[in-house]
Amino acid sequence: MNNPASAFHFTEFPGFEIAQKLIESGIFYKNSPRYDLHKGRGKRLGCIFLNPSLRTRISTQIAAENLGMESIVLNMDKEAWALEMEDGTLMNGNTVEHIKDAGGVLGSYFDFLAIRSFPTLSDKEADMNDKVLNKFIAATGKPIISLESALRHPLQSLADQITIQQHLPQGRKPKVVLTWAPHIKSLPHAVANSFAEWTLGMKHDLTITHPEGYELDEKFTEGASIEYDQSKALEDADFVYVKNWSSFRNYGKTPPVRDNWMLKESSLSQAKNAKVMHCLPVRRNLVLSDEILDGPRSLVQEQAANRVFSAQAVLSHMLDLTTGQK
Amino acid sequence: MNNPASAFHFTEFPGFEIAQKLIESGIFYKNSPRYDLHKGRGKRLGCIFLNPSLRTRISTQIAAENLGMESIVLNMDKEAWALEMEDGTLMNGNTVEHIKDAGGVLGSYFDFLAIRSFPTLSDKEADMNDKVLNKFIAATGKPIISLESALRHPLQSLADQITIQQHLPQGRKPKVVLTWAPHIKSLPHAVANSFAEWTLGMKHDLTITHPEGYELDEKFTEGASIEYDQSKALEDADFVYVKNWSSFRNYGKTPPVRDNWMLKESSLSQAKNAKVMHCLPVRRNLVLSDEILDGPRSLVQEQAANRVFSAQAVLSHMLDLTTGQK
Amino acid sequence: MNNPASAFHFTEFPGFEIAQKLIESGIFYKNSPRYDLHKGRGKRLGCIFLNPSLRTRISTQIAAENLGMESIVLNMDKEAWALEMEDGTLMNGNTVEHIKDAGGVLGSYFDFLAIRSFPTLSDKEADMNDKVLNKFIAATGKPIISLESALRHPLQSLADQITIQQHLPQGRKPKVVLTWAPHIKSLPHAVANSFAEWTLGMKHDLTITHPEGYELDEKFTEGASIEYDQSKALEDADFVYVKNWSSFRNYGKTPPVRDNWMLKESSLSQAKNAKVMHCLPVRRNLVLSDEILDGPRSLVQEQAANRVFSAQAVLSHMLDLTTGQK
Repeated sequence: MNNPASAFHFTEFPGFEIAQKLIESGIFYKNSPRYDLHKGRGKRLGCIFLNPSLRTRISTQIAAENLGMESIVLNMDKEAWALEMEDGTLMNGNTVEHIKDAGGVLGSYFDFLAIRSFPTLSDKEADMNDKVLNKFIAATGKPIISLESALRHPLQSLADQITIQQHLPQGRKPKVVLTWAPHIKSLPHAVANSFAEWTLGMKHDLTITHPEGYELDEKFTEGASIEYDQSKALEDADFVYVKNWSSFRNYGKTPPVRDNWMLKESSLSQAKNAKVMHCLPVRRNLVLSDEILDGPRSLVQEQAANRVFSAQAVLSHMLDLTTGQK
Repeated sequence: MNNPASAFHFTEFPGFEIAQKLIESGIFYKNSPRYDLHKGRGKRLGCIFLNPSLRTRISTQIAAENLGMESIVLNMDKEAWALEMEDGTLMNGNTVEHIKDAGGVLGSYFDFLAIRSFPTLSDKEADMNDKVLNKFIAATGKPIISLESALRHPLQSLADQITIQQHLPQGRKPKVVLTWAPHIKSLPHAVANSFAEWTLGMKHDLTITHPEGYELDEKFTEGASIEYDQSKALEDADFVYVKNWSSFRNYGKTPPVRDNWMLKESSLSQAKNAKVMHCLPVRRNLVLSDEILDGPRSLVQEQAANRVFSAQAVLSHMLDLTTGQK
Repeated sequence: MNNPASAFHFTEFPGFEIAQKLIESGIFYKNSPRYDLHKGRGKRLGCIFLNPSLRTRISTQIAAENLGMESIVLNMDKEAWALEMEDGTLMNGNTVEHIKDAGGVLGSYFDFLAIRSFPTLSDKEADMNDKVLNKFIAATGKPIISLESALRHPLQSLADQITIQQHLPQGRKPKVVLTWAPHIKSLPHAVANSFAEWTLGMKHDLTITHPEGYELDEKFTEGASIEYDQSKALEDADFVYVKNWSSFRNYGKTPPVRDNWMLKESSLSQAKNAKVMHCLPVRRNLVLSDEILDGPRSLVQEQAANRVFSAQAVLSHMLDLTTGQK
């Protein structure tokens, strides 16, 4: 919403004040999901998926329904045509339609568009420029909501902040820790980037812990403490966000890690009140242990439930902006 | 609905009285599909498919619409993430999300959930325990409708009983025959199990005929006559339900069958008024002959049409239960 | 709508008067999309896709929503069962359900059905008889809208005529040119056939230009001028419709073409006011140059936007016919 190109996109942290308003709005809708049942009447949201999705897909549709908006979902890769992202290319390969053309058409069909597009994890420059998202924004000419892009996952981060807000310790600033976790695949940085951006943006203390070589892009972590010793990082944590990501420096690679970084109950011996967060899907007993996921520390289900209200707050805000209310 | 875990699930035969009520309700909605157009307003149904579906998919959506409910369809395997079903496992393989986590999230998003999940046909114990369905029930904490599980297909069976009810012979009990038919693949037992369970539950006479080695699980057939001679079984039949299934004893296998069990017009020489039923999809001229499917004996299209009203009766009943009406 | 089998299908050019009415209706809805927001209330449209689709898929859903109709989309090949098209066959192969059975069921579930089914490009006779479309029409017994069949793409053509109507030159008949363009695959004739059929049906002058060997079926082009010299054909053109198609004579084949038929700005040196049209998706710099697609001549995005109103005009007309209004 503070996107330079437009006041209307929701693709990154929107600044402290708007974020605070969105968190409050999300909590409001959590209590009264159908309060604004007619607010979006006659408005149409297109949800375009270039990658799989469960929570994002369903929560966005529900959020739209709760506001009386129509939504249509398109699995671009499976139901429509393979998209070309390069400008000026001779399209004699596997791609059938240019994003300029498809995006333009979608822009004419919908009032708002939402798009999910994962990074390549091989073309660092393209990913760092959030190429697909930005080409989509340029092509559609309509307010865009990111359903996770190469760089960020802002609807997840807003849901995470709503969750943190509802579990704040009394009378002091919370200690928030973002910890790397093991995985068998090379995963994107988007959730970690976005969580750092929002947590710092909301003026919480943030410690990030990960093996050497797994430093995130400093653009997102400036202001956080980086601590390579996981057990030290976890001391007295109030919130522990667990997430795997691949190397940023050695882009998309997964350099070997000696220690076992999986978060288990014993990792939290010095953080007895710590709540544990994860965006899901999570590979159990690889990323996070059963005991934590099924125990009282876990906020994981609550985060997922808050995805509806995160999306609803954003859609509602965008409706306000387009109709001139504030 | 008589499920031990909850009064709200629809996963098996719900007992004579409720079944009778559902049959009547289905017939009522068949005559007045939009009578209760606002009954489900504000309620949301999630339809989760782990396998393909045509009739079940569409009829359930229409039934929900007819009651004013919102419904959202998710092709779990194609649009979301591959699910892990085993507890306690280290998820370092092909599955991305545990059913506990995905089920919990879906439970938080929807008022009712419906799920389709075919059997493995290789892990007999898992299938006999209806493992996926029951894990889904446990994870979601919401009222569940089976859209066909390893063991049963109750919405199909209710539609079948609605169909039988509307074609009952005058003044006498009908003779119902369930006959095995050939196929080229190893097929589940769910439709046959469920048809037997409901037909017997509705106190109809049921004869089951199949080649030796193709006995169904006795749990579903107790009270039926088993007759290995198809032509003898078909004598004086009023309703002939045709269906292939694989061996239960030699689980999921398809031991060779000498005779041609395909039902054709000549098979019914001693059953001149017999109506023929099948749940669809049907492989023509393998399972059932063109002459029967395209002739006056066939109730197949009527069964499929009744799927809407079967689902509508069940959804309506579940709405009654959740709002405390009866 | 002038289909011999029924007054209700929309599968081909419906005759001058109805076409003119539909064009006007489309332009009306373009200005007032939600004017008839309740007209289709209680009516249900099933959209059945046997092939990928972006514009057709979304524009048809939006058109239905704009008229208050319910619509349900089914990706037949991916979400349901592989269909058998041959009558009398023994179904012991890869197809799971006969179109007679699936079509009958869909006919019982919906008030209107829409279907997309591409040609084989190998079985000329089947394609020339529009086999899948016609079997679907026969099986469903409901009013059918073609979402592109082997032979035609009438919703596209109506959108094209709406577009032409809004860009007609003042005081004279327009010169319309349909030009073949290069491609790397063997493509259907449907868009070209349909564009010719509608343009001639609307009594515009039509010149068709293509390499020798790429003559379209004369059934669709009778009355058009055929000109093998592209640059001559393009002289003084008002509208240039660009499209690839495979050979009709040497059916589905792509005999080599020496010259470069791609339309570029320099191709239009003798047609300074020419507007350029294409149905999308388009392979840029193979079929059409960037300079044209991104320049002021292009009507391509406008055509795509008009797809909503083309579908809306047709659905509205079908609603009139079924309720007896005119």
